[in-house]
Amino acid sequence: MEEVRAVAQRAKEASPKISRLSSAEKNAFLLRLAENLMAKKDFVLEANAYDLERGRNSGMKKALLDRLELNEKRIEDMASGLQYVASLPDPVGEVIDGTRRPNGLLVTRVRVPLGVVAVIYEARPNVTVDSVGLCLKAGNAVVLRGSSSALSSNRALVQVVHETLREFHIPEGCVGLLESGSHEDVRILLSLREYIDVAIPRGGADLIRTVVESARVPVIETGVGNCHVYVDETASFDMAERIVINAKTQRPSVCNACETLLVHENIASVFLPRIVEALREKGVEVRGCERTRQIVEDVVPAEEADWYTEYLDLIIAVRVVPSLEEAIRHINTYGSHHSEAIVTSDYRSALKFLEEVDSAAVFVNASTRFTDGGEFGMGAEIGISTQKLHARGPMGLRELTTWKFVVYGSGQIRT
Amino acid sequence: MEEVRAVAQRAKEASPKISRLSSAEKNAFLLRLAENLMAKKDFVLEANAYDLERGRNSGMKKALLDRLELNEKRIEDMASGLQYVASLPDPVGEVIDGTRRPNGLLVTRVRVPLGVVAVIYEARPNVTVDSVGLCLKAGNAVVLRGSSSALSSNRALVQVVHETLREFHIPEGCVGLLESGSHEDVRILLSLREYIDVAIPRGGADLIRTVVESARVPVIETGVGNCHVYVDETASFDMAERIVINAKTQRPSVCNACETLLVHENIASVFLPRIVEALREKGVEVRGCERTRQIVEDVVPAEEADWYTEYLDLIIAVRVVPSLEEAIRHINTYGSHHSEAIVTSDYRSALKFLEEVDSAAVFVNASTRFTDGGEFGMGAEIGISTQKLHARGPMGLRELTTWKFVVYGSGQIRT
Repeated sequence: MEEVRAVAQRAKEASPKISRLSSAEKNAFLLRLAENLMAKKDFVLEANAYDLERGRNSGMKKALLDRLELNEKRIEDMASGLQYVASLPDPVGEVIDGTRRPNGLLVTRVRVPLGVVAVIYEARPNVTVDSVGLCLKAGNAVVLRGSSSALSSNRALVQVVHETLREFHIPEGCVGLLESGSHEDVRILLSLREYIDVAIPRGGADLIRTVVESARVPVIETGVGNCHVYVDETASFDMAERIVINAKTQRPSVCNACETLLVHENIASVFLPRIVEALREKGVEVRGCERTRQIVEDVVPAEEADWYTEYLDLIIAVRVVPSLEEAIRHINTYGSHHSEAIVTSDYRSALKFLEEVDSAAVFVNASTRFTDGGEFGMGAEIGISTQKLHARGPMGLRELTTWKFVVYGSGQIRT
Repeated sequence: MEEVRAVAQRAKEASPKISRLSSAEKNAFLLRLAENLMAKKDFVLEANAYDLERGRNSGMKKALLDRLELNEKRIEDMASGLQYVASLPDPVGEVIDGTRRPNGLLVTRVRVPLGVVAVIYEARPNVTVDSVGLCLKAGNAVVLRGSSSALSSNRALVQVVHETLREFHIPEGCVGLLESGSHEDVRILLSLREYIDVAIPRGGADLIRTVVESARVPVIETGVGNCHVYVDETASFDMAERIVINAKTQRPSVCNACETLLVHENIASVFLPRIVEALREKGVEVRGCERTRQIVEDVVPAEEADWYTEYLDLIIAVRVVPSLEEAIRHINTYGSHHSEAIVTSDYRSALKFLEEVDSAAVFVNASTRFTDGGEFGMGAEIGISTQKLHARGPMGLRELTTWKFVVYGSGQIRT
């Protein structure tokens, strides 16, 4: 408990200093950190080897071990990620808008850092460095709480960060690492409204639910993606197949992958056999509604729970719908409001889908996989928000800031 | 419990309908509601008389009775408030920005309503009508939970709202009133993440703390204002006096009124006697630090707790500070991050104060009383946010919206 509070308090105390660094200072720091990571890669890999060894001994699954593992390539990727963030424009200090009021007051709205951002995440140690890069570039202090299975790796990475901060005479406290593995400590961190301005959970649905339910600090929910592709009756089958296969199989473990396919009933008997065959060729298990199972053989029956499920795996749920309206209703009912696509050649269907689907990103004739800060032209991202407050969809540097009203007077009083 | 859930669910179900009304439809509704309120004013005043009677019988204080009371003038003010909101630009549908990506995707960011807004407030029944006007104009459904002491008035007002909604064939569920007075019901309302997109508490510090601590839905903290005026050593005394008197006494019961005066030590012996006299002439009780009490007679000693207090009354705390830096430190330590002003003629002091004070609104040579949606040129406001997430400072129609990414493709897949 003492440790948690002390780490958060140090971050808060360091935050005014980091918030006022110039863009040049922040960029120089990020570039130097990239260099230092490369120079210290043996040190980091050694710490990571220790985590991997512990993981193997405790029976960690292969997929998790893969996410935990660092290698020379992954360290290079972290370093080039930092170089990329250094190249992005600095959001801090932007005068968003302003107006001269009739009484002569000049009212301006200026972009400023959020303050202290807490990032709570799971196995992948690269999140440590990504979060430091994005938060510091946006002028924020950061408190990191990674998985205890990656503690040794995260400690080593944060040690390199702290050494680099010292080179630049920036208080080390602006990057804090919670080393305790206890859930109670996370709960305490999430209650410290005096020190933490926002908490961003990055990870699976369970982690996000736990954070949302226990936090008293403001939270930005990220990343749970039960995404849909709806194939309208007027869709080009070639395009529909290309998009469904891409959205489902190009990288099934990520949040913007497709989990449920909805098909208009007027084309189901022709399109379904074709798309199921194509999906199966890619190793995808198909779970279908009753009507899907009447059209295609050997389809596992989909249960109600399937419509809610983010598989993050080579599994897809398929449902035949009687209309565009029913497709929209299905998505708004079962989805997680992340990313949804319609494949259609009908103008009115396209506009109706875009307007009525209540998700962070809605697509016509494109794969849901495009929901991404880089793909949307925002630069790097710290996560994809599925809530409506503050930021929705990919969150880049701008979404790690807030504003303040800066008002220039000459003695005005209110009458 | 059933009632709460049912009211919230009806609001959620009505929200798509209200979100897609045209500006013309929304404005026609607001203007008609203004007319209907005036036409039904006897009905509303009768309901209010019942609340006032109950209040008097239960020993309600005069100030609270005053806030609870409606009269012809106050009903006219509500109606003209609705007419004003009708005249404001509609934030919904704005294309905030957009870009054509190298792969041909057109990525746009479009402003959309938040969905369902829960407003939790205290005695003043005009908040009922203000909240309906602002939330509906921004395309949101709204769930209202006023004080049980105003239940009869709020019921009558919502009845007029529902009658007007029916005239326009808008589902009545888009404006819900929680009639139960139980705190448990508020707790349930604030847990309904599936129905409520954001909760906005409007009221005193206790109400806001309760909402923040019990909510699982996202909350925007509003309104607690422990505001400061700092008089720098280079200030014009005339201007400083004018600003301090205005900030403290023009309307002491509101959140942007000044609660603590900080004075640079180099001018304290000259300025303090003068300002204390002027404050006392206005009936203000002065509580001072040790040095203030050495300079001015009969000043009540300020305790540590005074620096944290939002008096909302004709009381002011006064402290002599050795430097601008200490003034900034005091404000950032004890303040509520609402509104703060410096009075100075020194350029560097002005800029330093604006940059380093961490509040929603910072002023040079102007009264803190200007922190207000109308005064800042944003139109009407639903509250003043003192948190950093989503909106900071006065929240107008735009702050009652979010965005979604609307993406137009021609068959793009991610590679």
